[in-house]
Amino acid sequence: MAVSVVSRELEPERIARLEEGDPPAVVLLDQRRLPDEIAEVACRSVAEVADAIRTMVVRGAPAIGVAAAYGMALAALRGEDLVEAERTLAASRPTAVNLPWALAQMRDDPTPERARVLHREEVERCRRMAAHAAALFRPGTRALTHCNAGGLATGGYGSAVGALRAAWERGLLERVLVDETRPLLQGARLTAWELETVGIPHAVIADSAAGSLMARGEVDLIVTGADRIASNGDTANKIGTYSLAVLAAHHGIPLYVVAPTSTVDHAIPDGSAIPIEERDPAEVTSRFPARNPAFDVTPAELIAAIVTEHGVHRPPYAESLP
Amino acid sequence: MAVSVVSRELEPERIARLEEGDPPAVVLLDQRRLPDEIAEVACRSVAEVADAIRTMVVRGAPAIGVAAAYGMALAALRGEDLVEAERTLAASRPTAVNLPWALAQMRDDPTPERARVLHREEVERCRRMAAHAAALFRPGTRALTHCNAGGLATGGYGSAVGALRAAWERGLLERVLVDETRPLLQGARLTAWELETVGIPHAVIADSAAGSLMARGEVDLIVTGADRIASNGDTANKIGTYSLAVLAAHHGIPLYVVAPTSTVDHAIPDGSAIPIEERDPAEVTSRFPARNPAFDVTPAELIAAIVTEHGVHRPPYAESLP
Repeated sequence: MAVSVVSRELEPERIARLEEGDPPAVVLLDQRRLPDEIAEVACRSVAEVADAIRTMVVRGAPAIGVAAAYGMALAALRGEDLVEAERTLAASRPTAVNLPWALAQMRDDPTPERARVLHREEVERCRRMAAHAAALFRPGTRALTHCNAGGLATGGYGSAVGALRAAWERGLLERVLVDETRPLLQGARLTAWELETVGIPHAVIADSAAGSLMARGEVDLIVTGADRIASNGDTANKIGTYSLAVLAAHHGIPLYVVAPTSTVDHAIPDGSAIPIEERDPAEVTSRFPARNPAFDVTPAELIAAIVTEHGVHRPPYAESLP
Repeated sequence: MAVSVVSRELEPERIARLEEGDPPAVVLLDQRRLPDEIAEVACRSVAEVADAIRTMVVRGAPAIGVAAAYGMALAALRGEDLVEAERTLAASRPTAVNLPWALAQMRDDPTPERARVLHREEVERCRRMAAHAAALFRPGTRALTHCNAGGLATGGYGSAVGALRAAWERGLLERVLVDETRPLLQGARLTAWELETVGIPHAVIADSAAGSLMARGEVDLIVTGADRIASNGDTANKIGTYSLAVLAAHHGIPLYVVAPTSTVDHAIPDGSAIPIEERDPAEVTSRFPARNPAFDVTPAELIAAIVTEHGVHRPPYAESLP
């Protein structure tokens, strides 16, 4: 059954929530089935939450952190071993630092209310960073984005898509080119759906068309989210972000990373220490041999600014990142 | 029914041929259904040949020219108006210059034998250019290619894939990364199938992974075909080639274009005069607005060499191109 939601906000609790019934459950919007179906997955154990993260029922660095926080609250409600629960959730996906960050946040207070506060704060950070990022737009800006750094990825409102929404509300955005983002099509399925929901003009393109459209002068700026930002500003994000950054530099187009401080990992000095997930080659093709690196690292020098909830940070990021 | 052909040459007459029975037909291997099905389409009029070119039953610049040549022979056999037949075929797709080139070749002698000679000569050119291109490989070369410039695209043997085959036979090629080439997946469906057929190790990747794999040092050279080469060397090819060329230059990796002289258009001075086909956005997605430029133009300065049947041509191409 295809259900279409085009007229209302994607509320945070529709993306992820904890239900404290008997039995309790972490309920997640199934992002694999969007936009054709709006379906929820109820996870009744930490193992099921970890599976939902691994199989990308929920994806996007901040949203993974939110789901993991609810997972820890679920573990406590069910009386699961909390050390084991944290280990299970931490191992579900390697690249986004928001996952270990959220688990650390929950360690002293693994309650439903703590998880809900973490979720609410993540969405609030998005709104603040979007306001900062909107200042980077000029009237008539034609933007390009990659993957989905929308409300679905952050638990609500969105980071890069939040920036687009804030710019649109201020009359500064003309339209958005959306990289379809192979192999899992988060751009064509999720970002296009979110932009349609809030009424922002957009067009999906094959990832490999972005460079040619930059050369034609059809892109004024690029905004993406991030999965992990090293203390020098090197940024891991969905595979293809690095290519966009090289192309943007070649064409003199600024690339902005919009992400909450929960994505900044001051424990690592640069991008070479970020673990890059290799996913199942069958996501690309099951007919022939394939490779499927899910992320790449964009060197700090190719990023015009990193926007967090604290403001717009410029190079050198070792000094400017909060 | 899935049929697999892994042990024998993809003979030129399996890709395109003219059958002179009653009624006569241009018979084309249906490239849209590969690799899952090996099926043929019989075109019994020039309008049907033009439809087969437009809908990409047959694709690839030299192969389109071959199909059009057989189409003119079919028109003559059937007593169709030859001026009208040429106009119909010429309008089927805009970017590849091999189409008007082949029609011009057929104008004075629209016979089955002339079409077969044109086809045979196109395959022969491939073998010659592949031998020239193989000299660009060193032992252990790890290559990357985009779209399908294989036997399917040229009527037999292949241009860029021909170069890979010749390098493999000489022990100079370690393996090939194959861009899947969205939206129609010519890399994942056709090039991977051809490489499997001739036993060359390969892995399909999402188009947007190419830059990251270049940064990791996993690509020694890039080979592509071409749809039209201007007299200054600017080259139109499948969308995404331009991005690869920018990324290759950034990483100091040579990008070689391998194409027969039937792809060189001396009538135009540079790439700005090459018509770029915009195909149905539904090839990208039918769920949201989309854009679908099918080709892009790579400036000559980003191309390390252009290889034709006459040899390896280096910049400045205005002087070196035959």
